[in-house]
Amino acid sequence: MIIVTREGITEEELDHIRERVEAMGLRTHVSRGEHRTVIGCVGDEGRLLHVPLTSIPGVETVHEVMKPYKLAAREFSADPTRVTVGKMDFGGTELGVIAGPCTVEGSDMLRETASRVGAAGARALRGGAFKPRTSPYSFRGLGEEGLRILAQVREDTGMPVVTEVMDTRQVELVASYADVLQVGARNMQNFALLSEVGRLRRPVLLKRGMSSTVKDFLLAAEYVMSQGNPNVILCVRGIRTFETATRNTFDLDAIPVLKQETHLPVIADPSHAAGRRPLVAPLAYAAVAAGADGLMIEVHPDPECATSDGEQSLDLNEFDALMAALRPFASAAGRTLPAPSEAVASMSV
Amino acid sequence: MIIVTREGITEEELDHIRERVEAMGLRTHVSRGEHRTVIGCVGDEGRLLHVPLTSIPGVETVHEVMKPYKLAAREFSADPTRVTVGKMDFGGTELGVIAGPCTVEGSDMLRETASRVGAAGARALRGGAFKPRTSPYSFRGLGEEGLRILAQVREDTGMPVVTEVMDTRQVELVASYADVLQVGARNMQNFALLSEVGRLRRPVLLKRGMSSTVKDFLLAAEYVMSQGNPNVILCVRGIRTFETATRNTFDLDAIPVLKQETHLPVIADPSHAAGRRPLVAPLAYAAVAAGADGLMIEVHPDPECATSDGEQSLDLNEFDALMAALRPFASAAGRTLPAPSEAVASMSV
Amino acid sequence: MIIVTREGITEEELDHIRERVEAMGLRTHVSRGEHRTVIGCVGDEGRLLHVPLTSIPGVETVHEVMKPYKLAAREFSADPTRVTVGKMDFGGTELGVIAGPCTVEGSDMLRETASRVGAAGARALRGGAFKPRTSPYSFRGLGEEGLRILAQVREDTGMPVVTEVMDTRQVELVASYADVLQVGARNMQNFALLSEVGRLRRPVLLKRGMSSTVKDFLLAAEYVMSQGNPNVILCVRGIRTFETATRNTFDLDAIPVLKQETHLPVIADPSHAAGRRPLVAPLAYAAVAAGADGLMIEVHPDPECATSDGEQSLDLNEFDALMAALRPFASAAGRTLPAPSEAVASMSV
Amino acid sequence: MIIVTREGITEEELDHIRERVEAMGLRTHVSRGEHRTVIGCVGDEGRLLHVPLTSIPGVETVHEVMKPYKLAAREFSADPTRVTVGKMDFGGTELGVIAGPCTVEGSDMLRETASRVGAAGARALRGGAFKPRTSPYSFRGLGEEGLRILAQVREDTGMPVVTEVMDTRQVELVASYADVLQVGARNMQNFALLSEVGRLRRPVLLKRGMSSTVKDFLLAAEYVMSQGNPNVILCVRGIRTFETATRNTFDLDAIPVLKQETHLPVIADPSHAAGRRPLVAPLAYAAVAAGADGLMIEVHPDPECATSDGEQSLDLNEFDALMAALRPFASAAGRTLPAPSEAVASMSV
Repeated sequence: MIIVTREGITEEELDHIRERVEAMGLRTHVSRGEHRTVIGCVGDEGRLLHVPLTSIPGVETVHEVMKPYKLAAREFSADPTRVTVGKMDFGGTELGVIAGPCTVEGSDMLRETASRVGAAGARALRGGAFKPRTSPYSFRGLGEEGLRILAQVREDTGMPVVTEVMDTRQVELVASYADVLQVGARNMQNFALLSEVGRLRRPVLLKRGMSSTVKDFLLAAEYVMSQGNPNVILCVRGIRTFETATRNTFDLDAIPVLKQETHLPVIADPSHAAGRRPLVAPLAYAAVAAGADGLMIEVHPDPECATSDGEQSLDLNEFDALMAALRPFASAAGRTLPAPSEAVASMSV
Repeated sequence: MIIVTREGITEEELDHIRERVEAMGLRTHVSRGEHRTVIGCVGDEGRLLHVPLTSIPGVETVHEVMKPYKLAAREFSADPTRVTVGKMDFGGTELGVIAGPCTVEGSDMLRETASRVGAAGARALRGGAFKPRTSPYSFRGLGEEGLRILAQVREDTGMPVVTEVMDTRQVELVASYADVLQVGARNMQNFALLSEVGRLRRPVLLKRGMSSTVKDFLLAAEYVMSQGNPNVILCVRGIRTFETATRNTFDLDAIPVLKQETHLPVIADPSHAAGRRPLVAPLAYAAVAAGADGLMIEVHPDPECATSDGEQSLDLNEFDALMAALRPFASAAGRTLPAPSEAVASMSV
Repeated sequence: MIIVTREGITEEELDHIRERVEAMGLRTHVSRGEHRTVIGCVGDEGRLLHVPLTSIPGVETVHEVMKPYKLAAREFSADPTRVTVGKMDFGGTELGVIAGPCTVEGSDMLRETASRVGAAGARALRGGAFKPRTSPYSFRGLGEEGLRILAQVREDTGMPVVTEVMDTRQVELVASYADVLQVGARNMQNFALLSEVGRLRRPVLLKRGMSSTVKDFLLAAEYVMSQGNPNVILCVRGIRTFETATRNTFDLDAIPVLKQETHLPVIADPSHAAGRRPLVAPLAYAAVAAGADGLMIEVHPDPECATSDGEQSLDLNEFDALMAALRPFASAAGRTLPAPSEAVASMSV
Repeated sequence: MIIVTREGITEEELDHIRERVEAMGLRTHVSRGEHRTVIGCVGDEGRLLHVPLTSIPGVETVHEVMKPYKLAAREFSADPTRVTVGKMDFGGTELGVIAGPCTVEGSDMLRETASRVGAAGARALRGGAFKPRTSPYSFRGLGEEGLRILAQVREDTGMPVVTEVMDTRQVELVASYADVLQVGARNMQNFALLSEVGRLRRPVLLKRGMSSTVKDFLLAAEYVMSQGNPNVILCVRGIRTFETATRNTFDLDAIPVLKQETHLPVIADPSHAAGRRPLVAPLAYAAVAAGADGLMIEVHPDPECATSDGEQSLDLNEFDALMAALRPFASAAGRTLPAPSEAVASMSV
C-alpha cells in the first residue's frame, strides 16, 4: 500500500499515519517530494484492508500495490487450472463448447438438442431449471422437474449438464443433479451463494456481473476458492454500457486480460452478449480468436417458440453451421475441437 | 406492444406474425407506411412476454407500450404509499432520516451512535450484522450477535433498526430482530431473496443495483410486492459509471423520475454514492431538494477506526452539523424534521 | 509518480527504470517490499508525461501523485475565481442564472423570453445561433443572423448573451457579438477550439463532455487557461450512462467534487441532464443545494413549437414558478438571487 | 414515428396531436388499446424531427420507425462500399492493415517503420502530425513538418499515409499531404470538421467517439457523406465504460452490428482499445474473426522511447509476429493478406 499525503501535512499527522500502519504490523518507508510526501507500507497489505486509511487526517490517496485476490491470481499457480467436465478439461488445448436451451421446457426438446449439439462438437449441455427473470411475471422454469429432465437426458446421451443455482437453499438439490453449477451474472456478488457453492467440489461456472470489473470478478472467484473449491470456470457474457444496439456490450477484451491475471479457465457466452441471433456466430469466432477456452451458446430446436431468450437462440442447423465455421478459427488459435463423428460416437454409449 | 416490420416484408410473413400475436388473445391492428408496416397489438401485453417476437421472420423491432410493472406503478395507487417505521411514516411530509454505522461493532459504539443521531433528528438506526464484502478476506460482520446488539440498543433508545439480509436462509432470523429488512445493491436482482422478503409484511428497504435501470429497480420492487408485501422503501445509492472521482455516481435524477413512476417512498444514501466524507452533506441536501422522502447516512463515533466504510462515515459532530444545515433545505422542499429536542424526548422512554 | 515493479524484477531492470526517470531530472527513491519493489520519483512529474513508463520492462503499474492540471487546481488560487458577466460575478455569493431558448428562432421570441426571464431573476440570456446537431438533417441554427438578433436583444434588454461557438474559424465572429462563449459538450475535447477561445479574454462557458471524467474536464479548462484566458465557467450537464429513463444522467456529484478540486465557478444545466420538462425544476433545486454557483435553463415562449429541445424547455410561466421555488433553496445554500423587481428595473435601462 | 399517448387522454388532446403531425404532411393512423391509444405517423419521418412531440400534451413516448441515417444505411447501397487507398480497397476481400507510430517523430524512425510494416503486409502508414492530447502540456506533434515527413516517406516507400486532422482551418493543408484524413474519437461529433472533410473526396477514416452509440457513429458518417464525400472508413477503437483494467473497453460487437447496418467498410484499432501491448494481438485476431475489413495498429521502432502511446505500441518484431499469426485467422474469415514478399516487392519501387 502506498499512501500519498496532502500538501502541507504536519509532522504530527505524518507520525499518526505511520503509527496506524505500523500498529498493523507493517513497516513504513517515507519519501519526501517537493509537494507531497509518500509513505510506502511494506508487509502484509491484507492487514490494512480493515483500516480506513483515507479517513486519517493528512491522507490524500491510497494506492494498492498487491492484488486483492490470492488463490485466483496467475502467480498462485504455475500451470493453467484444468476443470474436468465429463470427458474433457476446460483450460486445456481442447475448446470446450457448452450448448443448449435457455430453459428446459421438456424432455423431448432437450434430448433432441443434446443429440444434435453433441454431434456437432459440444461437450456439455446447458439448460435452466431455475431461471432468474427480471420480471416476476415471466416464466421462471420447471424447477426440480427441470433438473430431473436434465439428468435423464444426460443418461440418454452421455452429455454432462450445466444448470443455474440461484438460492443457497437449493445448492444441495441442484448439485445432486448437475455436473456444473452455474452462478449467474445477477448473483455474481451474492456472497452467500458463492460461499455455499465453494463448500462443494463440483465445478462452478461463474458468470461476470453486468457492472463488475475484472477485479470484482476475480474476487467473486476468490470467494468460491477460499471455501475450498478450486474448480471455477469464468464466463464473460457482456457488460452494461450506454450502447443500446446490443443487449449487452461484449466484454471480449476481458478474455486476454483474465488469461493474464488468472490461471482459471475463461469461456465466453456470445448469446447473452449479443442478444440477437445474427451476432452470435461472429462473437463466438472472436472469443476463440481472443483466447477463450470455450463457449456457451444458446440453442433451441424452435427459437421462435422458446419460452425465453428466443431472440438470441440459434436453431439446430444454425448451431451446426457455427461449429463448422468455428473450426478454422479454433485451429488458428491452436485449439482442437472434437471431430463431429467422434462426438456422435461418444453419444451412442 | 407495437411491432415494426422489416422493409419488404411479405404478406405471408405479416400474416404469420399476426397469427402468433392473436394466438395469445390480443387483437392486431396493421398500419402500412411507405417503407415499414407497423402492427399494433391491442390487449394484455403481459401475455406477449413469453413470445420471442423479434425472432419471428420479418420483425425488425418491438416497442413496449405498457409498463412491465403493475403494483409498483404510480397508476396503481391514488395516494403515495406510506411505510410506517417506528413513530413515523416514510412517504409522508416528514423527512425520514436513518443513520448509524456501516457495521455493528459493539453495543457501546452502537448505543452512543443511536443516542446522538436520534437526538439530532434521525428516526431509525442502521447497522450491519451480515455484511456483503467484495473481498472474502474483509470483515463480514458479527452475524447474529450483531442482531442481538441492534435489538438491545432499540430497547435502550426506542430507535427502530434497519439491517441487511443477504441470504434466503436468514430472512426469518433477521426479521425476528429487525424493524426494516434491507436488501443491498448487490442483491437487488437476487430474485429468491426478493421473493422471500415479499412473504413477510416487514418493511423492506430496497437499494438500487449498481447497474440497474429505473425499470429494473421497479421490477425488483414488484417482486417483493407481488408476494404480498406492499411495504417497500426504495433507496438510491449511486450507480456505476466511467467516473472514478467518486465511489459511485450519485443517481440523483432517479429521485424525481421514481416519484413520477411509482407511489412508493424514495430515499437516498449519499454516503455510498459519495464514498468520501466531505461530499456526503452536499449530496444529502441535494437529495432532499430533488424530492427524496428521506436519507440514510453512515455515522460512526470514530470513523478512522471503523471496520468498514470509514472513509464515508460522518462522526457524531459532523452528523449534528449536517442535520442542522439540512433543516432549511427540508423546509424549502415542504418537508418537516423532528425538532432536536423532540427527538431527544422520544429517546428518553 | 510512483512506479510499482513486477514481482521478481532483476537488479538490471530496476537500474534501467531508475536511469530513465533520472534522465528526466527527477530523483528516485527505492522501497523494497516483500513481493514488490516500489520506486518513488521525486521532482517535476510533468517531465515524465513523455515517458511511456509502463512499457519499460519490469514496470507493473504507475500511480500519479500530482494533479495533471495546474492553473485550474484549487491550490493555484487562494480565493474562488469570479467571472464577471454583465452586472454580476459567477463564483460569488449571488447565484447566476442563465436562461433562454435552445435556438434563436427570431427576434420577437427572443426579446419576449429575455424580458421575462430577466424579470424573474435571470442575469444572462442564452440562445444558439450555431447549433451542434446529431443529425445533419436537423436545423442547425440561424448562424450570423442569430448572432445579430442576440446582440439586438441585449441592446433592448440589457441582458448579456451566452452563445455557442463550434468552429475555430468562427471564434472571432462569435466573440464580436457574444458576452460569453459557450463550448459545448461534444467539443469539450476539441483542443483546437479550446486553444482558440483561450487566446481571448472573453468568458468561456465550458460544458462537460458526455463521457469525460472530472480530470478530463479540468484538463480542458487548463487548455483554455494555459493560453491566457482565466475566465472559465464550468458547466455540468449530465453524462452518458446505461440509464435510458433520462436523456443523460445528471452528474450532480461532480458539483461538490469540482468545488473541492478547482477555484473556477461551477454551474449546472438541468435541462440537458433531464431531457424532460417535469424533471428540470427538481434538478435545478438539487444543483443549488449541492453548491452550484449558477444554473443554465432552457426557456421558450412556446416549447411545443420550439425548433429544438422543446421537450426539455420550460415555458415562461414555468420558469417564473421555478425561480420562485428556487429562492428558499438558494437561501438555504447561503446564496442570493436578484429580487424580481430589481431585475425588472435593471432591464428598463 | 409511433406516438404512444398517456392513459386517459382526451379527444381534444388526441385531435391536437394529429393536427400537429398532419401539418407536417404525414398521415395519422389511430389504434385504440385498452389503456393506451397509439398514433402511427405515415410519411416522411424526417419532417417530424423539428417537432418536439413529447412536449405536446397527452404524449407519453415516441418511437422512431425509420433509421435517422440514409446515405450510410445498408439499404442505400446494394453492394458494400469500397474505399480505395493506394493499391487496395477497404471493404473488399483483402484485409487492409494500417500501421505506424502514434506520432511522427522524425524521418528515420518513420521510414524504418514504413519499410518494416509494409514488408509484413501493411498497406498504409499511420502517423500523427497534429495530435489531440488530453493535457495541454503533452507533446502535440510536429505539425506541418510532420506532414512533410509523411509525404517524403510515402515517396520513398510507396506506402499511402493516414494522418489526423483536428481543425477546420487545417483540412486543406492536411489534405495536400495525406491519402486518408483521420477524424479522431474526440472529434467524432465536431460537426464543423465533419462537414469540412465531407467537401473533399479524399477518404476519411472516422473513429468512433468514446461514448457514441452506433447510431451516433453512423450519423457522424452521414454528416461527411451528406456533403458529397462517400469515401468513409469507420473505425472502432474502444468505448468508455466502468472497467479500468483496459484503457477503453473494446467495442468488438459493434463490428458485426455495423456490418449489418451500413455498407461502409469497418476497421478496428486494437491498440487504443487495449492500451497495453500484450493485449493488442488477441484483440486484432478477434476483430478479424468478427468480420472487420481491416486493422489500424500502432507500431514504433522503440516503444519505450515513443513520445506518445508507447505503452500500447508494438515494436517491429512484435508487429511481424502479429501479422504472421493473423494470417490463419484472416483465412478463416475468408480474407486475404498480401504475401510478405509481395509487400516487400511493392515497396522496392
